[in-house]
Amino acid sequence: MADTSDETKLIMEERRRMDIKVEEITNVIDGGSNNTTLRRKITDMIQNDAILSDMDQFYKTEEEKYSRGIRRALRVRKLDVDFNDTTTQRILFIATGKEIGLPIHSGVFVPTIMNLGNQEQVEKWVPLAVNFNIIGTYAQTELGHGTNLRGLETTATFIPESQEFVVNTPKLSSMKWWPGDLGKAANHAVVMAQLIIKGESYGMMPFIVQIRDLSTHLPLPGVKVGDIGAKFAFESNDNGFLILDNVRIPKENMLSGVAEVDAEGNFMLKSDPRVLYGGMMLIRVNLVDSQAVFPLQQACTIATRYSIVRRQGSIQSGGDEVSILDYVAQQHKLFPLLAASYAFHFSSRQTHELYKIINAEVKNGEFSNLPELHALTAGMKAYLTEKCLAGTDICRRACGGHGYLQASGFPNIYLQQLASVTYEGENTVMFLQCARYLMKCMSGVINGRKIVGIPSYLNERMSDRCHATSERDLTNHDTLLQCLKHRSSFLIRQAKEKIDSLTKSGKSYQDVWNITSVELVNVARAHLEYYIFSSFLQVIQNMNASADTKGKMGELCSLFGLHTINENMADLLRDKYLSAKQARLATEAELSSLSRIRKYALGLVDAFDFTDKTLMTCIGTYDGNAYERLYENAKRAPRNKTEVNEGFYNQLRPYLLKGRDILEGTKSKL
Amino acid sequence: MADTSDETKLIMEERRRMDIKVEEITNVIDGGSNNTTLRRKITDMIQNDAILSDMDQFYKTEEEKYSRGIRRALRVRKLDVDFNDTTTQRILFIATGKEIGLPIHSGVFVPTIMNLGNQEQVEKWVPLAVNFNIIGTYAQTELGHGTNLRGLETTATFIPESQEFVVNTPKLSSMKWWPGDLGKAANHAVVMAQLIIKGESYGMMPFIVQIRDLSTHLPLPGVKVGDIGAKFAFESNDNGFLILDNVRIPKENMLSGVAEVDAEGNFMLKSDPRVLYGGMMLIRVNLVDSQAVFPLQQACTIATRYSIVRRQGSIQSGGDEVSILDYVAQQHKLFPLLAASYAFHFSSRQTHELYKIINAEVKNGEFSNLPELHALTAGMKAYLTEKCLAGTDICRRACGGHGYLQASGFPNIYLQQLASVTYEGENTVMFLQCARYLMKCMSGVINGRKIVGIPSYLNERMSDRCHATSERDLTNHDTLLQCLKHRSSFLIRQAKEKIDSLTKSGKSYQDVWNITSVELVNVARAHLEYYIFSSFLQVIQNMNASADTKGKMGELCSLFGLHTINENMADLLRDKYLSAKQARLATEAELSSLSRIRKYALGLVDAFDFTDKTLMTCIGTYDGNAYERLYENAKRAPRNKTEVNEGFYNQLRPYLLKGRDILEGTKSKL
Repeated sequence: MADTSDETKLIMEERRRMDIKVEEITNVIDGGSNNTTLRRKITDMIQNDAILSDMDQFYKTEEEKYSRGIRRALRVRKLDVDFNDTTTQRILFIATGKEIGLPIHSGVFVPTIMNLGNQEQVEKWVPLAVNFNIIGTYAQTELGHGTNLRGLETTATFIPESQEFVVNTPKLSSMKWWPGDLGKAANHAVVMAQLIIKGESYGMMPFIVQIRDLSTHLPLPGVKVGDIGAKFAFESNDNGFLILDNVRIPKENMLSGVAEVDAEGNFMLKSDPRVLYGGMMLIRVNLVDSQAVFPLQQACTIATRYSIVRRQGSIQSGGDEVSILDYVAQQHKLFPLLAASYAFHFSSRQTHELYKIINAEVKNGEFSNLPELHALTAGMKAYLTEKCLAGTDICRRACGGHGYLQASGFPNIYLQQLASVTYEGENTVMFLQCARYLMKCMSGVINGRKIVGIPSYLNERMSDRCHATSERDLTNHDTLLQCLKHRSSFLIRQAKEKIDSLTKSGKSYQDVWNITSVELVNVARAHLEYYIFSSFLQVIQNMNASADTKGKMGELCSLFGLHTINENMADLLRDKYLSAKQARLATEAELSSLSRIRKYALGLVDAFDFTDKTLMTCIGTYDGNAYERLYENAKRAPRNKTEVNEGFYNQLRPYLLKGRDILEGTKSKL
Repeated sequence: MADTSDETKLIMEERRRMDIKVEEITNVIDGGSNNTTLRRKITDMIQNDAILSDMDQFYKTEEEKYSRGIRRALRVRKLDVDFNDTTTQRILFIATGKEIGLPIHSGVFVPTIMNLGNQEQVEKWVPLAVNFNIIGTYAQTELGHGTNLRGLETTATFIPESQEFVVNTPKLSSMKWWPGDLGKAANHAVVMAQLIIKGESYGMMPFIVQIRDLSTHLPLPGVKVGDIGAKFAFESNDNGFLILDNVRIPKENMLSGVAEVDAEGNFMLKSDPRVLYGGMMLIRVNLVDSQAVFPLQQACTIATRYSIVRRQGSIQSGGDEVSILDYVAQQHKLFPLLAASYAFHFSSRQTHELYKIINAEVKNGEFSNLPELHALTAGMKAYLTEKCLAGTDICRRACGGHGYLQASGFPNIYLQQLASVTYEGENTVMFLQCARYLMKCMSGVINGRKIVGIPSYLNERMSDRCHATSERDLTNHDTLLQCLKHRSSFLIRQAKEKIDSLTKSGKSYQDVWNITSVELVNVARAHLEYYIFSSFLQVIQNMNASADTKGKMGELCSLFGLHTINENMADLLRDKYLSAKQARLATEAELSSLSRIRKYALGLVDAFDFTDKTLMTCIGTYDGNAYERLYENAKRAPRNKTEVNEGFYNQLRPYLLKGRDILEGTKSKL
């Protein structure tokens, strides 16, 4: 029997001691034990597959990662699973360690054709793409234009003579720039371009453009395409540039689910053009799970486990060194994040449900709830990517210097997350889109309209003061809900007043909006925090679980609420909704919650049920054997393949030999 | 004449329009025009040197970066400059793009011997090291122990028989882990180890241990050494591990400036043991400049310039697209950081001055001001690394997606900075050390002692209310100083009350400290913000510059103060020092300041006077030519050397040929 390390003993002892129904919480997180079973089944399939089980991401070159991504993309399609099931999709993504190539081909190109193509187009292109007979990308952003779609400069001009479109990126700044899978892989692209017919512009439309030859894989005439170069991470993706110099495509390559051009060049709208942007909402809904919430849960898992096995200093004079998780400052870093990662998960699931409902309405031609969904998905994208990114880095720092090692697992998690705050809609723009909707709601309230949906709290007459008189009162869910509601409502009203007063002073709408933008971003944040908290509450109320598990989820919900309030206390003090004394109680209530959660924090991260392979960490594995794993991993470093590093030694040798002579001389003199 | 791009025209036009004395501000930043001249002279030397001028960091492998670092380290010593001059050292660091190898050898090993060795040891080892005849590292942290020095497990046991020490890392967790230059380069190390004589421990002492043979460069018997593996960045450094299995060193290898062991094994203290830690203070003072403040200034430079040339959307209905710097939300991201980067620079210079004074006192045996210096350097290290890191990422995001490209320059800057929050003292521990000193001062005040130095504001009787009634009042330097002073004082007193009340309830000192730690970290932050603001004020008061420049520096100082207060408004509202109305005025005052600074923000970043080579950016160069540079740089990417990527094509070819057949079949059917 191999020796068990001190670190493993420590974490196993902690597991024995804690009182928490880990498996039940796992089921709750998965959305039912059936989903847990499915997830474990798929995870096992992957971890038993020769190709997919290799998730070792350490010490790989960019090109190794790229090739491997392609290999894994081909392989994953052969699994016997239901690729159309969203739960399965999510499980696959996590269980494969996110290291699957051609993500834009599979995740955007195919769905775009399905959503925006007509029946004929879907039947023609989708099977080709799904079987990798063509590889596609989605080319929207340009070198000089991103989030502002109306500013895009690529054109597709109708040529009635040949029944073609000529697609053109007229300037340097209008080359397509950033699309994933474009640089080296794609031979087709859905290109978003301004449709021009007889000199008149009809707005952005999607066109399928072939860019590379299917026999030689060389760019077609008029096409320049390549990789945009090194990034923070995502080495397994070839984000690309694309210059189109009067490239002609047949008329039937305009995706025509939404609008059509007939042979004479008549433009015909077939459905609401907002459908064109429906895909962006789905992408945002999905990406917050995969690129924000899961990474934060992984970061919490690693940091919490490591904080148990890492010992430093003693709290009692002369006592043994203690786990750093026993320090309140450490708990204050990690537990609010742990609570948030639960809150984010459950609220994100609620958003998914809402998306399904409203999307079904839209398909039936009912658009009245679309603005709410659009505002919510934009806001949640911005809020969750921002918070989860910051949270992951707090977890990393909570692991001290070792968090800076690739072996910690953090670089993998964090560097991908870093991209999430700017892609798929720059976050400030997203917050402002959310705020714009809230301002419209507020105008509605002023004009006597009853608001439905999430911001319906704007209809309510709220109490002027919070009546909490104890820590316990402030931990109460309803008290916290009222605080968050009050804060959001206060900020919305205040921003509205500023807007109205600036408008009265004669400023233009755009000017007013610009001047108020800093406040409006905060408005959106406050609203989203209310939404997340209330979603978490709803989930708990409807939860099929033991009282013990419900209690623990309730504790996390309180901590999320308290932490949010404490971080934004000025808003509640300004409005005098909370007094200075209540503010003090809220701080103490948060600290008290930390010491309760300390007892079962390990169970809360174990419940996420990430496998060691998925976490790819030496310091946060289930067995806690941090130091042995770090040392074993260091020995594998390419630099350690030889004792003597040539890059060093070839340059320094003459100097060192002189050093030897001097030191030996010194010695011989003695 | 080559065409000038739209972007270059835009930035040149902005420069013509602005009214700011850039060169004068550069002189102020440099600390006098002489320093500006020296800096430019050294920068020219480097940029004209065949080896040192190559600062291209894009698309290099780890080993290329490592070898290059060594080559540059050897080369830089040959420059005709005064290496002992601290200004020169700083200039060299920036002007070489921070890409100089063997930084721990030059920056820590040599100074440690100079500080902690006796005269004989300095004369023996320093020339060897400076001439690269030996390469050394400083080995303190262990795999299982970092910031808590007393927990280190490495031992050096005196052997009277042979007049040797036997140095030992007894367990896996006690191997040295992290020291820079250790993995592959160092043949000597200053090893920090518990001195043991006749079974008794005398605390941590420094020992010079040879670890590799000077002829073969192979590890000596009893030594295991290697690289600890991949990190977020710092690929040009071989951070290493070191296992010492009963390695014997001669008695004279204990660095004996502070304490000595005689032939019989008697331990003799020669000076105050706190001198042992003096080196850490100097490292902290220096690193905040080089690893925190300079990077933030660089990030501000890139983001501000790019925000001028990047255009998106229009503010006036139907108007042209505008520079994104015209958006208030963008100004609110960047200008407070720009103000902070000035504030940090000047306050850091004040800390340098204080270090020089107190260090001179210490050399004369006067230790009374050492605790203040220790608290200040620890606190500043934590505060500035934290703020500058966060600031750099805000700048990166302000550049949208392009900030994620290596070509933006941000990955280089940011990934190095990421390490700064945990190395040389984990930040939470550093904040708590600063707070501990402040709590001692507060105890002093309560006991009627008059406090001297920075926290002397604790002696003052302060006003209960701020009397500002306008935006203008709140922009006033003295009002802001009183706010920051009041806040710090309030938090210190509140923490002290909590500590006293917990102590009275019977809790141990350690328990009380742990329970109050979250508040104490905030205490330290508030104190440091007061210190930074007041230092900036002092610098402005003594500044040898025109009224115009003083006015602009004053505006930055106000913005720093206002932004700090707005971010921490709850502290001032809780104490009722500010009213809700005043809070609102403070927000508006900050926003007003942004529109004033907008007019000359470009000049403020130009004044940092970074060369394009040092910035290593495509999007933030002096000429603003962002898009052409991005495209040129993309074309250089290794992946673009061939049109067809083998890693992709070899795997997909059969699928694609089938695609060709299907599509041609489709066509022929038409």
